[in-house]
Amino acid sequence: MEAMTFVLFGSTGDLAKRKIFPALYNLYVDRKMPEAFSIIGLGRKSFNDATFQTYVEQSLQEFSRNTPNDRKTVDAFLRSIRYHILNVDDTAGYQELLKLVEQRESELNIPQNRMFYMSVAPEFFGVIADNINASGLGNTSGWKRLIIEKPFGHDLESARQLNKHLSKTFAEEEVFRIDHYLGKPMVQNMESFTSANPVIQSLWNNRHIANVQITASEVVGVEERAGYYDHTGAIRDMVQNHMLQVLMMTAMTLPGGHTADDVRSHKKYIAKALRPISKEDAHKHIVRAQYANGVVSGREVQGYQDEPGIELGSNTDTFVAARVWVDDFSWEGVPFYIRTGKRMKEKSTRIVVEFKNTMQNSEICVDCDGQPNMLIISINPEEKITLQLNRRNVKTGLLEPMTSEFVMGTDHDPEAYELLIGDALNGDGTFFAHWDEVELSWQWVQPILEAFADNSLPLHDYAAGTYGPAASDALLAEQGFRWLGDQNAAPVRTGVASAR
Amino acid sequence: MEAMTFVLFGSTGDLAKRKIFPALYNLYVDRKMPEAFSIIGLGRKSFNDATFQTYVEQSLQEFSRNTPNDRKTVDAFLRSIRYHILNVDDTAGYQELLKLVEQRESELNIPQNRMFYMSVAPEFFGVIADNINASGLGNTSGWKRLIIEKPFGHDLESARQLNKHLSKTFAEEEVFRIDHYLGKPMVQNMESFTSANPVIQSLWNNRHIANVQITASEVVGVEERAGYYDHTGAIRDMVQNHMLQVLMMTAMTLPGGHTADDVRSHKKYIAKALRPISKEDAHKHIVRAQYANGVVSGREVQGYQDEPGIELGSNTDTFVAARVWVDDFSWEGVPFYIRTGKRMKEKSTRIVVEFKNTMQNSEICVDCDGQPNMLIISINPEEKITLQLNRRNVKTGLLEPMTSEFVMGTDHDPEAYELLIGDALNGDGTFFAHWDEVELSWQWVQPILEAFADNSLPLHDYAAGTYGPAASDALLAEQGFRWLGDQNAAPVRTGVASAR
Repeated sequence: MEAMTFVLFGSTGDLAKRKIFPALYNLYVDRKMPEAFSIIGLGRKSFNDATFQTYVEQSLQEFSRNTPNDRKTVDAFLRSIRYHILNVDDTAGYQELLKLVEQRESELNIPQNRMFYMSVAPEFFGVIADNINASGLGNTSGWKRLIIEKPFGHDLESARQLNKHLSKTFAEEEVFRIDHYLGKPMVQNMESFTSANPVIQSLWNNRHIANVQITASEVVGVEERAGYYDHTGAIRDMVQNHMLQVLMMTAMTLPGGHTADDVRSHKKYIAKALRPISKEDAHKHIVRAQYANGVVSGREVQGYQDEPGIELGSNTDTFVAARVWVDDFSWEGVPFYIRTGKRMKEKSTRIVVEFKNTMQNSEICVDCDGQPNMLIISINPEEKITLQLNRRNVKTGLLEPMTSEFVMGTDHDPEAYELLIGDALNGDGTFFAHWDEVELSWQWVQPILEAFADNSLPLHDYAAGTYGPAASDALLAEQGFRWLGDQNAAPVRTGVASAR
Repeated sequence: MEAMTFVLFGSTGDLAKRKIFPALYNLYVDRKMPEAFSIIGLGRKSFNDATFQTYVEQSLQEFSRNTPNDRKTVDAFLRSIRYHILNVDDTAGYQELLKLVEQRESELNIPQNRMFYMSVAPEFFGVIADNINASGLGNTSGWKRLIIEKPFGHDLESARQLNKHLSKTFAEEEVFRIDHYLGKPMVQNMESFTSANPVIQSLWNNRHIANVQITASEVVGVEERAGYYDHTGAIRDMVQNHMLQVLMMTAMTLPGGHTADDVRSHKKYIAKALRPISKEDAHKHIVRAQYANGVVSGREVQGYQDEPGIELGSNTDTFVAARVWVDDFSWEGVPFYIRTGKRMKEKSTRIVVEFKNTMQNSEICVDCDGQPNMLIISINPEEKITLQLNRRNVKTGLLEPMTSEFVMGTDHDPEAYELLIGDALNGDGTFFAHWDEVELSWQWVQPILEAFADNSLPLHDYAAGTYGPAASDALLAEQGFRWLGDQNAAPVRTGVASAR
C-alpha cells in the first residue's frame, strides 16, 4: 500500500469522532495502513496538534473496536496527526494547508499521494473541491482521491450539478462515494455468496426466485435530525441510496474473479434495467406513509407531526414501500419489494428471497402446500444467512418449516468504515457508489419525488411500532405475496397432511 | 386403523425383545395402534401368558423409548398379549394357533385381519408360510399381511426361490420386507427433502451434482456374528440391501403428493437403471478388503483373520467400496460411490452430495477455487443435514468454507421399527423393500458375488481404525474426486486470495 496523506475536512465533527478516526486507528492496528502516512485534520475549532491528538485519542477510547491500550501503538498513530484551522471558503487557508501537506510529505519522505475526505455538509462539497483545485493541492505528482459522504444531491438535477462541479477537480475513478451499507460485511459477502457458490448462483434467477423483499426498518423516530429529515424523507434518506444499492447488489450475479470494474458495470446495468415509474403511475407501485402515535417497545410515543422541529402539516414520508421490476432476462417477472421506515416494530435490515414453488400449480401436488423455501439475508442487527426449507414431521406426518443458519459476522469483524476507507486507500472502488449508479438511481426516483411533491398519491399513516400501513401489505398481495420474516408473523400456511 | 391380530414368530428372540415389543408398546402409547388388537407371541420356549407378559414388560423396561411407568397403560397393553408354544414345522401346532387366533378375534369382536411377523432365521420362512397357508390361518375374511426380516436370500437364485415360495401364500402387496435403514427418520425425510423443497429439487440432477458418496462405516468388528458374517460379507450384509436402498432413495425424485406405488415404481426404475457390472469388470469398479489388526479408539484390536469363529484363510469382505452409475437422464455422468466396512475409524452413516463447480473450467474463474459446495445428510450417529458453502473472510479476503445445519432428529423421535410396523399396520408400503427392488439388487450384485468367489479381484487389507484401503481412495481419484466429510480430513483445497 502506498504512503499517503489523509486530508480530513470536518475532522472535529461527529462522524470523524465516531467512525473515521476509529477506522483509521483499527486499520493501523491491523497493519492495513501504509508504512508511512500523514493525517491532517481540518476544522474551524481551535485545536493545536497536541490538543487535537488528545481529542482523537478520546474518540478512540470511546468508539474504537480495538481498545487503544498499547501506549506505543497509540502514540505512534497519534504522532501522524496534525490539525489545521481552515474556513472552507477562505482561499488563503488552502495555501497554508498546501504548505503543511508538503512539509509533512517532505518530513516523512513520502510521495504526493493525497486522500481528501469531505466529512462536511453537502453545501460545502463544491467550494472545497474548487479550492483544492485552485490552491494546487490537487496538482500532485502522485495520486489524488476523494472520499465523499451522502447526501449526494437532493434530486436528479442537484446531483448532476454537484457531480459536474466535483468533476472539474476529480475524475470519476478518483471519487469514492461512501454508502455505508456497502461497507457492511454481510452486504460485501453478498457478492461472494453468489459468485463463490455454484449452488446459490444456479438458484439466483427468475426460474427459481418468486420475489425479493428488502427491508430496512428502524425503531427510532427522527430524533435530533428533525430539521434535516423533514426536508428529506425516507425516499431521499434511504431509498435513492441504500435501498437501491442493496437491490443492485442482490440482483447482480458475477462469476468469481471479477474486478471492481465488473462490479461497477454490472451495477450500472441493473440500475438501467430498473423499470421507470412515471409520476402518474407512482400511486400504483409506491406507498408512502408517516407515523402516527403508537407504542414502541411498550412505551407510548408521539406521532411524526408532534415531534419537535417538524413543520406543521408536514407531508414528509417516514415510510416508503415500493415494487420495483428489473427488466432483465434473469429477473423478468420477479418483483423486488423494498420498504423502509422509522418508528417501526423492529430494527431490521434484511433481504428475503422467496423461492418459487415449482409444483404450485400442479394437480398432483398435495405436499407442496408447505411454506415457501426462502433465504433470509440478515444485515442488521445480526449478520447471518438463514435458509428455510420444509421437513416432514415423522410423528405427525405433516410438513413443517425448518431453518438453518450461516453465521457470517463475529463481534470482532472490521466495521463498514474500516473496510471502505481501507478499500479507498487501495484504490479499490468495488464497494462504492459510482456516478452512473447515483445518477440512474436519482433518475428512477425523480418522478416519485415529483408525485410526492404534488401529493398525487396518498400519504398513509401508520401507528408507531407497527410494520407500516396496510397499503404496504396490499402492494405484495397484488402478486399473491406477503412480507416474510417479520417478528411474530403468522406462518404463511400451516402444515398439511401428507397424501400418503 | 383396523383392528387386527399380530402373530409374531420368534417372539422370544433378541429382535422381538429389543425392537418389536418396544415398538408395539410405543405405538400403543402414541395412539397409533388400532382401538382393539391382539398380539400372539410364538416360540419354542415354555412360557404361559402370564410369564410371557412379565417377560415382555421386562423388555419394555429395558428398551422402550417411552418409559413404561403408567401402570394402567402397561397393563392394558400386556393384557392384549398371549403366548403359544409352536415348533414351526409342527403342522398340528398351527391348527391350535388358528383356534387361539379365532378365539381372540371372537373375544375382542374384531375382524380377521392378521399380521404375520417372521422374526426367525430365514431357513424357516418357507415352512412357516406353507403352514400359514395349509392351516387356514391365511384364509381370512379380512386382510392378511406378512412382515419379514432380512436376509432375503443369499444370492439371486436363492432370493428368487424364497420369493416364489412365499408368494404361494402372500401376494406381493401383502408382503412388507423390513430394511431398517428405510425406517430411519432421516432416510424417510430424504423423500420430503427433495419433494417438498423446490430449491433442493431443482439442484437434484447432473447439472448441479458432481457425485454422490454413501458411507456406512462401523467401528465394531464381527462380534458374536462371526459364523454368520464369514459366510455373508459386507456385500451381502450391507451393499445388496441397505446401501442400494439408500442409493435408490437418494436418486429418486418425486413430486409432492406421491403415493406408495409411485415410490415403488420409481425405486424400481432406479434399480433397473443401475449400470450392470460384469464379473470380468468387477475389479475396475469394486474394491473389497478385509481388516487387519490396528488401533480403534486408542485400543489395539486384532485383524479379521484372528477373530474367534472366522475360518482360517477366510476371503470374506469386511469392506466394500463401489462406483455405481445410474443410467438415467438425470444422473448421466454422476458417479454414486458407496462404501461400507467394519472396524473403520468412525461410526457414520451418511450421504454426501458434492455439487459441481460450474465455473471450474472457466479462465475468468479465480475465486471458485474454494471448496466444493456440498450437502451432508447424516443418518447416524446424528440425524442432520449440513450444507457447506463458501464465504469470503472480510478480514483476510480469502474464501473459506462455512456450514449450516438442519437438525432433523430429536431424542424422542419414533424409532425405525415403530415407523415401519406402524406403516405396515396401515398397509402403507412406501418405506419397505419391494420384490422388484430386491430382485434387481441381487441381479446387480450377483456378478460381483461371483467375482469375489473366484477371487478375480484383489482382497485388499486395511488397518483396523482407518477409512479402508488406498484402493478405495483411488476409485474416486479416477474421476478427480475424494471421499468427503471424513473426520479430521484435510480440506480439499485451502482458501485462495481474491482477484479483487
